[in-house]
Amino acid sequence: MTTASYDKYSFANLMTERRRMKQIQIAILGYGTVGTGVARLLMENGELLANRVGAKLRLKYVADIDTTTDRGLKLPEGVLIDDAAKAVADPDIQIVVETIGGEGIAKALIADALGAGKHVVTANKALLAKYGNDLIATAAGAGSDLAFEASVGGCMPIIKTLREALVGNHVNAMTGILNGTCNYIFTKIADEGIPFEEALAQAQAGGYAEADPTLDVDGFDTAHKLAILGALAYGMEINFDDIFIEGIRAVTPRDITYASQFGYVIKLLAISKNHGDRIEARVHPTMIPTGTTLAHVNGTLNAISVSTDASGDILLSGHGAGMLPTASAVVGDVVDLARNLLLGVTGRIPVLSYQTDTIRKLPVMPMDDIVTHYYFRFNAMDQPGVLSKISGILGDHEISLKSVHQKGRKSNGSVPLVMLTHRAREAAVNAALQKIAALDIVAGTPMLIRIEDQQGDQD
Amino acid sequence: MTTASYDKYSFANLMTERRRMKQIQIAILGYGTVGTGVARLLMENGELLANRVGAKLRLKYVADIDTTTDRGLKLPEGVLIDDAAKAVADPDIQIVVETIGGEGIAKALIADALGAGKHVVTANKALLAKYGNDLIATAAGAGSDLAFEASVGGCMPIIKTLREALVGNHVNAMTGILNGTCNYIFTKIADEGIPFEEALAQAQAGGYAEADPTLDVDGFDTAHKLAILGALAYGMEINFDDIFIEGIRAVTPRDITYASQFGYVIKLLAISKNHGDRIEARVHPTMIPTGTTLAHVNGTLNAISVSTDASGDILLSGHGAGMLPTASAVVGDVVDLARNLLLGVTGRIPVLSYQTDTIRKLPVMPMDDIVTHYYFRFNAMDQPGVLSKISGILGDHEISLKSVHQKGRKSNGSVPLVMLTHRAREAAVNAALQKIAALDIVAGTPMLIRIEDQQGDQD
Repeated sequence: MTTASYDKYSFANLMTERRRMKQIQIAILGYGTVGTGVARLLMENGELLANRVGAKLRLKYVADIDTTTDRGLKLPEGVLIDDAAKAVADPDIQIVVETIGGEGIAKALIADALGAGKHVVTANKALLAKYGNDLIATAAGAGSDLAFEASVGGCMPIIKTLREALVGNHVNAMTGILNGTCNYIFTKIADEGIPFEEALAQAQAGGYAEADPTLDVDGFDTAHKLAILGALAYGMEINFDDIFIEGIRAVTPRDITYASQFGYVIKLLAISKNHGDRIEARVHPTMIPTGTTLAHVNGTLNAISVSTDASGDILLSGHGAGMLPTASAVVGDVVDLARNLLLGVTGRIPVLSYQTDTIRKLPVMPMDDIVTHYYFRFNAMDQPGVLSKISGILGDHEISLKSVHQKGRKSNGSVPLVMLTHRAREAAVNAALQKIAALDIVAGTPMLIRIEDQQGDQD
Repeated sequence: MTTASYDKYSFANLMTERRRMKQIQIAILGYGTVGTGVARLLMENGELLANRVGAKLRLKYVADIDTTTDRGLKLPEGVLIDDAAKAVADPDIQIVVETIGGEGIAKALIADALGAGKHVVTANKALLAKYGNDLIATAAGAGSDLAFEASVGGCMPIIKTLREALVGNHVNAMTGILNGTCNYIFTKIADEGIPFEEALAQAQAGGYAEADPTLDVDGFDTAHKLAILGALAYGMEINFDDIFIEGIRAVTPRDITYASQFGYVIKLLAISKNHGDRIEARVHPTMIPTGTTLAHVNGTLNAISVSTDASGDILLSGHGAGMLPTASAVVGDVVDLARNLLLGVTGRIPVLSYQTDTIRKLPVMPMDDIVTHYYFRFNAMDQPGVLSKISGILGDHEISLKSVHQKGRKSNGSVPLVMLTHRAREAAVNAALQKIAALDIVAGTPMLIRIEDQQGDQD
């Protein structure tokens, strides 16, 4: 061997060689949309990832019961297997990416992987919302890490922001548009004036809504995400069951039109507020001022505004779903774990970014205690004394009105009567609306939409 | 000792006790606005931080030559010293927070601290933009970490997003509003129609602009930040010197009014685009469509949109300056480093989040090669043949017009003639404008404002 032969190996080549040799071995469980995206990103951006991590992220397995459907991706020989348990059991595998979804087999596989000391990355918000506390305990017990950036807001790094960037802040409030399907539907209704069912059908045709849209349009998916964010923001146990959930089916094009006349747009919001000894946690269609940045988040985009004691308001926005945006978040987590593994450390950040023994059980404020602004729409008979009767009942319940609008003239014997309130208590509002609904001068169920308007908070 | 005496120490108490005992020792150099904010956050949110980190973040020193001015904060006895070098030399100190600013003593102290194996957190963008490559080399050589989330965008976690969350993505472009002073001034001009000098004076009176506003209004501060972001986004050396910089002084209320008539707002933008073998990096007043989210980022807020191959567009927005928003970012960095120190690891993420030997020198595209849309405003004589002459010269340079507007009637013998172009090359635009400026039918210097309009990119 001559000196010349050494020269061929420049420092950079040598380093590249080293990175090829150091490996982190990864298994993806579930070869659906997200799993395919993760596999694609690990393969297509493999050189970039090696340059950043200093090791090769080697995709050893992609496990799925369906090993035949073409996903438009050429996995290396032997990577695609039909047995997820085999991947989890392989001692070579250091990071398990769960992209199966649902609460059955996914839960068992994650628990097995964590128990075996493997680190797990998942996008499974439904699972975390319901069984997250158990999985966190399993991870802590086994010294494994559990990462889930992709579970909320797709590629926008809200989990990392809460766990790391805002770590020195007390979170006061969070307001999020966390479901792209609902946001798409509201944008469609607002832009085209079509009813909910038609907008939903278009969303389904465009691939923005599932055949069974319940999880999305009835607010459950948003609530899953809010449960995760609340735990991270306040250092509390995940409490999906206590979140108030109201979906978007009842909102009509008419409400959206009226909202815009009052300077509002309607979004399905996840709202969380910190009251110290208890929190607000609610998901419902909400009017927000058109001047706010959130109001301009349209289509399938997600966004969240976080308000803290030191930072003030921070807003993040991005694609909350889709193959590659979700994969971007998953791969971010994989790299975080890989960087730990290469240094031989685990548990660098506790799962909720609070030391386990400081995690609290924080009660959620009952909806009756919520105080906010309201929009009401009644179908009222167009006759004298109606306004006096309705406003009398509201007054009896200490609900004071900011404005009253009779919209258009009689149709089917009734006219839409729209009211905006000053700040009022939800319990009083419900009691009053029940009495008003029982009046024979009011047809159908009154419509109630809550308003978040910090400008109007003085009222 | 009886069993009862053990009972007093519940598990939680014991853990709290342990956290008190484990300490990370911190020195803040510079007791100005940001230094005060960091000290305040470490003290006031000390319990929160201990609960998250699992150790006490102990502020051992705050060093400043001025030890007498009241900053409204009561530091423990012995913490405030006048000798920063003493703090850096103290072997107890593990993390040094530099909030002195400037490029003199701050640079020497950071280099000393890094060289001594201490980890450094800084918000000093000017220093990083000019000497960042050296400091990064010093850090790498000594095995120290250098963190600087607060150097760009205050509390909005753009550095963490680029280094970690988007680690698996190729960044295609970044567009940012990174200077609150300029954004405040543009917002004032747009809202009140006042000229630049008056808006600047108001900004200075309100504490949003320095007595010497050069760094801000002439675009240097924004360019410092863009230099840092470019290095992180593309894994390249910091190259402040090659960035094109044009400040906001020349923009008139009239331009802002015309912009709004064409559906645009004007912002001082940092623009970066990845062309593979070279990048665009430029700072200048820019027209953006009113429908974009960035257009709604007003007042002193900062925001940035990052576009990548996998995630699509991500937007972050928040307070880019101010005592506590900046401190929030600094403390986030301190916690990142503390979490490493508690595990005994350093260099978990390379400073630019790329392995050192993969950092490239990427050339910045000369402005002559930029292709974009343009807004021109000429003061033209109100006489026949003017439009034909001007458009003839533009045509000779292959600049095709999207629209032409004569604004109002003659004043001082000339009328404002406004033109919007299709995509054109900057070299051609400059050559044409030089010829047009020399015409005796055109008074004064033509105004040129570049337009970023993805919708219009097909044109």
